[in-house]
Amino acid sequence: MKDKLREAAIELFERKGFKETSVQEIVEAVGATKGAFYYYYKSKEELLSDICLSYMDDLLRQQERILEDAGASCTEKLWEIVYMVICNIRTRKKSARIFFREMRHLADGHLEEIRAKRRLFRKRYEQLIRDGMARGEFKASLNAEMITFGLLGITNWSYYWFQPDGSISERELTEIYVDFILHGIRTPDGTEINKETDRPLN
Amino acid sequence: MKDKLREAAIELFERKGFKETSVQEIVEAVGATKGAFYYYYKSKEELLSDICLSYMDDLLRQQERILEDAGASCTEKLWEIVYMVICNIRTRKKSARIFFREMRHLADGHLEEIRAKRRLFRKRYEQLIRDGMARGEFKASLNAEMITFGLLGITNWSYYWFQPDGSISERELTEIYVDFILHGIRTPDGTEINKETDRPLN
Repeated sequence: MKDKLREAAIELFERKGFKETSVQEIVEAVGATKGAFYYYYKSKEELLSDICLSYMDDLLRQQERILEDAGASCTEKLWEIVYMVICNIRTRKKSARIFFREMRHLADGHLEEIRAKRRLFRKRYEQLIRDGMARGEFKASLNAEMITFGLLGITNWSYYWFQPDGSISERELTEIYVDFILHGIRTPDGTEINKETDRPLN
Repeated sequence: MKDKLREAAIELFERKGFKETSVQEIVEAVGATKGAFYYYYKSKEELLSDICLSYMDDLLRQQERILEDAGASCTEKLWEIVYMVICNIRTRKKSARIFFREMRHLADGHLEEIRAKRRLFRKRYEQLIRDGMARGEFKASLNAEMITFGLLGITNWSYYWFQPDGSISERELTEIYVDFILHGIRTPDGTEINKETDRPLN
């Protein structure tokens, strides 16, 4: 029943917003009573916190599994993390959107707990970049912290536009983004073509 | 007065949320009457739409000015757009957060108008990537559409964490990100170092 309440709340919070959804609507959606609701959750806020925490815990578990793989290079682990975050859009898009949009409605204690988990995810990611720099896979000159924010930006932003059943698959998007992250968009020699003559400018 | 109402609403919507802010609170914040409010705006929703539209119009104007510069290369224009979006955090952070968070409260007509402007910003950006590919500045193999979403992700995400008065300036962040976007994070030869011996693996 707890899972059912959470699933119903994810649907309603995502569609209507946290503030605009009442406990009554949540229990009606699963055919339960308010008594049942308050058996599992002290308040609507605690349910929101549960949704955000379970979202972050799940991401952290998946990230840990990838980072633990002693046989993989940092580049391979980077690939796996990008793929993991993109694949989560299919199953966790609504939770993610609630997470980003409604976090401000959390009580201070819950907010701090969730922020700590989010920071852990980012700091582990940053450590992977530092490890790659130490191993000579990634450039030693990188600002690992800023680059990590950039990597998170690329994949987190995809929650707002990527359609997993559209013309580009999760694997294809991962290939495009990891190639971009590793090698950039500039041609190796940066040659510019003169548009009139179709010949190199330099 | 219209500007004052809009500024007060930006403060309140950002801090409390659109739904949680009443017209009464907005007029109180500027010492006006409800009559004055309804002289300028049909509804609170129209004010939200005004905030989102003026945010997008301003971005589009700035982007246009950059793209019009016939003497600049695509790489230079890319630098200018990244810098412009990052610089806007200082002045437009609250509008941007309202834009992303509260857009779903807009009426259909307003929503479509704003989505069209957002699409225009993205499509012009994508065209810059395509132009750079045609000129030989950017790799001809890029998926311009997906790369553009990635570029937007890097800079839009920075609205959630970047502190313009922190240890990294807008210009420094732009340098870090444009270098990352152009050249990626991988070392040119991708040499890996054996951690035990500190010697290259391959």
